[in-house]
Amino acid sequence: MSTTIKLAEYLFTRLHQLGVRSIHGVPGDYNLTLLDHIEPSGLHWVGNCNELDAGYAADGYARINGVGALITTFGVGELSAINAVAGAYCERAAVVHVVGTPETATQDSRLKVHHTFADGNYQRFAQMHAHITVAQESLRDPRSAPEQIDAILKKCLFHSRPVYIQVPVDLVGAPVEAGRLWSESLSSEITSIETMVSPAHDLTLSIILEKIRAAKQPMILVDGESRALRITEDVQSIVQITKWPTWVTVFAKGLVDETASNVHGVYRGSYDPKAKAFVDSSDLVLCFGPHFSSTNTFDSTSIPPKAVTISFTDNEIRIGEQTFRDIRAKLGVSRLRQELSAMHLKPSGIPANLPSEDREICFSSLPSKQCITQDKLWRLLANFIRPGDIVLGETGTAGYGVQEMVLPRNTRVFAPVTWLSIGYMLPATQGAALAQRELIASSAYHGISHARTVLFIGDGSFQMTVQELSTIIREKLDVIIFLLNNDGYTIERCIHGLKKRYNDIARWRYLQAPRFLGADDGVFTATVSTWGDLERVLSAREIAGGSGLRMVEIMLDREDVPEGPLLDLLREEKKAVSGES
Amino acid sequence: MSTTIKLAEYLFTRLHQLGVRSIHGVPGDYNLTLLDHIEPSGLHWVGNCNELDAGYAADGYARINGVGALITTFGVGELSAINAVAGAYCERAAVVHVVGTPETATQDSRLKVHHTFADGNYQRFAQMHAHITVAQESLRDPRSAPEQIDAILKKCLFHSRPVYIQVPVDLVGAPVEAGRLWSESLSSEITSIETMVSPAHDLTLSIILEKIRAAKQPMILVDGESRALRITEDVQSIVQITKWPTWVTVFAKGLVDETASNVHGVYRGSYDPKAKAFVDSSDLVLCFGPHFSSTNTFDSTSIPPKAVTISFTDNEIRIGEQTFRDIRAKLGVSRLRQELSAMHLKPSGIPANLPSEDREICFSSLPSKQCITQDKLWRLLANFIRPGDIVLGETGTAGYGVQEMVLPRNTRVFAPVTWLSIGYMLPATQGAALAQRELIASSAYHGISHARTVLFIGDGSFQMTVQELSTIIREKLDVIIFLLNNDGYTIERCIHGLKKRYNDIARWRYLQAPRFLGADDGVFTATVSTWGDLERVLSAREIAGGSGLRMVEIMLDREDVPEGPLLDLLREEKKAVSGES
Repeated sequence: MSTTIKLAEYLFTRLHQLGVRSIHGVPGDYNLTLLDHIEPSGLHWVGNCNELDAGYAADGYARINGVGALITTFGVGELSAINAVAGAYCERAAVVHVVGTPETATQDSRLKVHHTFADGNYQRFAQMHAHITVAQESLRDPRSAPEQIDAILKKCLFHSRPVYIQVPVDLVGAPVEAGRLWSESLSSEITSIETMVSPAHDLTLSIILEKIRAAKQPMILVDGESRALRITEDVQSIVQITKWPTWVTVFAKGLVDETASNVHGVYRGSYDPKAKAFVDSSDLVLCFGPHFSSTNTFDSTSIPPKAVTISFTDNEIRIGEQTFRDIRAKLGVSRLRQELSAMHLKPSGIPANLPSEDREICFSSLPSKQCITQDKLWRLLANFIRPGDIVLGETGTAGYGVQEMVLPRNTRVFAPVTWLSIGYMLPATQGAALAQRELIASSAYHGISHARTVLFIGDGSFQMTVQELSTIIREKLDVIIFLLNNDGYTIERCIHGLKKRYNDIARWRYLQAPRFLGADDGVFTATVSTWGDLERVLSAREIAGGSGLRMVEIMLDREDVPEGPLLDLLREEKKAVSGES
Repeated sequence: MSTTIKLAEYLFTRLHQLGVRSIHGVPGDYNLTLLDHIEPSGLHWVGNCNELDAGYAADGYARINGVGALITTFGVGELSAINAVAGAYCERAAVVHVVGTPETATQDSRLKVHHTFADGNYQRFAQMHAHITVAQESLRDPRSAPEQIDAILKKCLFHSRPVYIQVPVDLVGAPVEAGRLWSESLSSEITSIETMVSPAHDLTLSIILEKIRAAKQPMILVDGESRALRITEDVQSIVQITKWPTWVTVFAKGLVDETASNVHGVYRGSYDPKAKAFVDSSDLVLCFGPHFSSTNTFDSTSIPPKAVTISFTDNEIRIGEQTFRDIRAKLGVSRLRQELSAMHLKPSGIPANLPSEDREICFSSLPSKQCITQDKLWRLLANFIRPGDIVLGETGTAGYGVQEMVLPRNTRVFAPVTWLSIGYMLPATQGAALAQRELIASSAYHGISHARTVLFIGDGSFQMTVQELSTIIREKLDVIIFLLNNDGYTIERCIHGLKKRYNDIARWRYLQAPRFLGADDGVFTATVSTWGDLERVLSAREIAGGSGLRMVEIMLDREDVPEGPLLDLLREEKKAVSGES
């Protein structure tokens, strides 16, 4: 017996089956009827203040939840969101971007409607999206729509990258065959593709095992595409089983338990000379989910020596100079884990003199009236984070700062990786916090029943997308914001224009934001300038034990940055400026 | 003797020569050195809070000034701005979009730097911009750069549409030949192209004059591309010389003096049955700068009968069914004006019973405690506008409202035309107000020495781009904002989802915005709910005679809209909703 369902319901039911519980977006006249079907399909609608923010939020949601969704309107809406979708493409967040478009008859007649260039061309925006999404579909026929939807959603999940679906107004309520919804499970299909055995697989594994047996100083480097490849659990096991010295990239921070004694935090290449000496002398590096952009590799200095590296990427395994194609990481890593469990592994060499305990710091060692500085700030803030928290460090000094925090288990970290779109982190915080709450509610969050989302963000970044604080308030999310007020674009000052007016920004009264944006009087806010201030605030009941939005403004010097690459840049720029004058 | 100049100085000097005085944008690491050259070139840098806003502001600036400029950084910055640039393309604002890109050597080595997808492809973003700009240039060789810059700037002005220029970091300071800067005037070259006589010209003009002599009921329809075609002065003269009944489109509102007795305001097609009867019975319609999108023509009902229409477009003159190509409007209209001055013109028929004086309204006729409603609001607000003011009505009820205002001479109007990107008007206000101030300062503003920029905007729109209020404050612009607080997206409610939650928005405390965004205590703010409130506020010294930012929140019912198309939609939607329940 054939059953039909409305096209929009089909799409939303599929999203629900894949684990989506909330959809982000902004209403617009070509998507309103589409929105009618969200709540009846068991999904929650998050109306953001604008489309770029909605895109960022959907990305943040997807990175925590595995997949997210975004709805915008034709032309203006989708183009406003395009930079966010590009970021999801770059850093592999599975975002389904659904665009409500004019009626098919309108499009076919090339009518000069609004949200077009009044030139009859309706194809431009899809063509623009082809550059930043892994697949595009225009639904025009109810008979083929279910198959089109299924195929594109599988691509989204398989590549963990955004896809783009156009739904014309007249197709929203069109009846489509519902049968596939129950006869075909997209998740099983994706799993079956991911675990498909390739002929080269056994050979590859045997070469890898041989190298492991022969290795005298093996080590592990975990990179951030591990999340997109859904191998983090296996990787975590491999780190535990082998006890080999392990580093992560910034992109992977939080994906493995960094409290384990063999995990040494972020490997910063030439900025960590002792670690670099160890890495460069290793005779085997297992590298999971590599993403070797210049930022994520500290200008390529943290890329391990190719000859001794075995990399597990989305679709191939690279052993030294050899590449074995069409082997999905999911299967390769899972089988490696099984083999390692059964092996008797020799202990690896241990890296000497890595900075660790000596870098720990506590308030009692700091003069309480001294101004806060970023050389110590981040290690202090690390103590504030609890298991299960999501920690976000916006591009800027915050993004470098969070790299220095040693974090508890099951935390997740958002930091600058490659796309580095300033303004991203506040809306991403909204999306991530919502996904976190939903996962906790469904008992799918590491057995943790309460966790917070903690954003560290500079003043310049905060100004870019400030309105999304209103969505955090409206959705009653458990978010703590530390706003680093350093009077402008400090990261840009480090790069160029230390004293230039173009790196200044308007001086806002940041702590008035929650009230202005609709919060009731209950939102805790504070400004801190000294170590004493910070200690008091961090132990305040509202921060330590409260809920909802809380906001702390940390006053910092314009030219204060964390140690590491930014400090090097700052020194060079200071030299250049003093040379000029 | 050959003189050289740095490439960036060449570009900025050219922009200055064309009349640009301020550049909008956001700093980013690939454009910082470019920004160093702005102020030394005699230009003012406006750092906006984000790139979409900067793009909107550059568009608003360009529509008042004739040309504007925008600087963003590679990838993230340019994609954030892309919707604004698309709007400038759609509605013909001459915006020069300059993008700072990575060094040429970096690009050629396909390095995996940040702000790319770490795939070595540096071409995507230019390809995306090809859909929404009239020309693109990548400056890679200092020897050809001056010619490339000149050619693309001419295209920008000639088409009055955005262009896109990539400047790699290493070319910013490269020495280029400066000679062209003084030997070749871009403005003269553009004028000479615009006034180039085509062989068909005399013939076309003689046919037009014949039709004019024969016409018994001629009329004029002025549309908004007249601004882009730089024919508004000639059109204004033709309206005065002929004394023929004249209407404007929404796009053209403000371009001709609507206090003249033969100018009847916006022609709303089937929403103005009496005017429509006159138009449909006319035997000659001179139509200047047509832009026949569905919104601008009230669903095509205000398009005049083709058989009797003579249209002057950017590159052709259409007489009935005949098209004469390659005749630029600039020359065609200028010669027509000369001929008309010398002709003895018969008076045209006069349209009967058009709504005019009977629609005038004053506070004394309204109960002071009665709540404000949009059926009368706009005609009252019209009295507040002075010659030289710029009036902006954001897409939404405000956009429909400003159409009803009969405005003094030399006002300029921004209203929804075709692109209708909600969020546009607040940043566009910043750009327009800045251009207005600069033109006043250079005595090039209709002999007017003081004027304001007045924005009417809904709460939902305000939320989209609220941060740009901070730039208005920082630049000390004379801006008055009337915020229509109707608790959500009222225009969407009229279209669909009258009572739906997705058309709700968070309730902000709007009048706290100036303080939050850095204004001192001097900013005048007020909330008005009744006619009495409104009368008091409009006569307050700070509003009537003050300067800087002032902000009035007008409380309105969620389902209150101006008369006309929106009211029709609202009635239909109410019917649909009551039918459902």
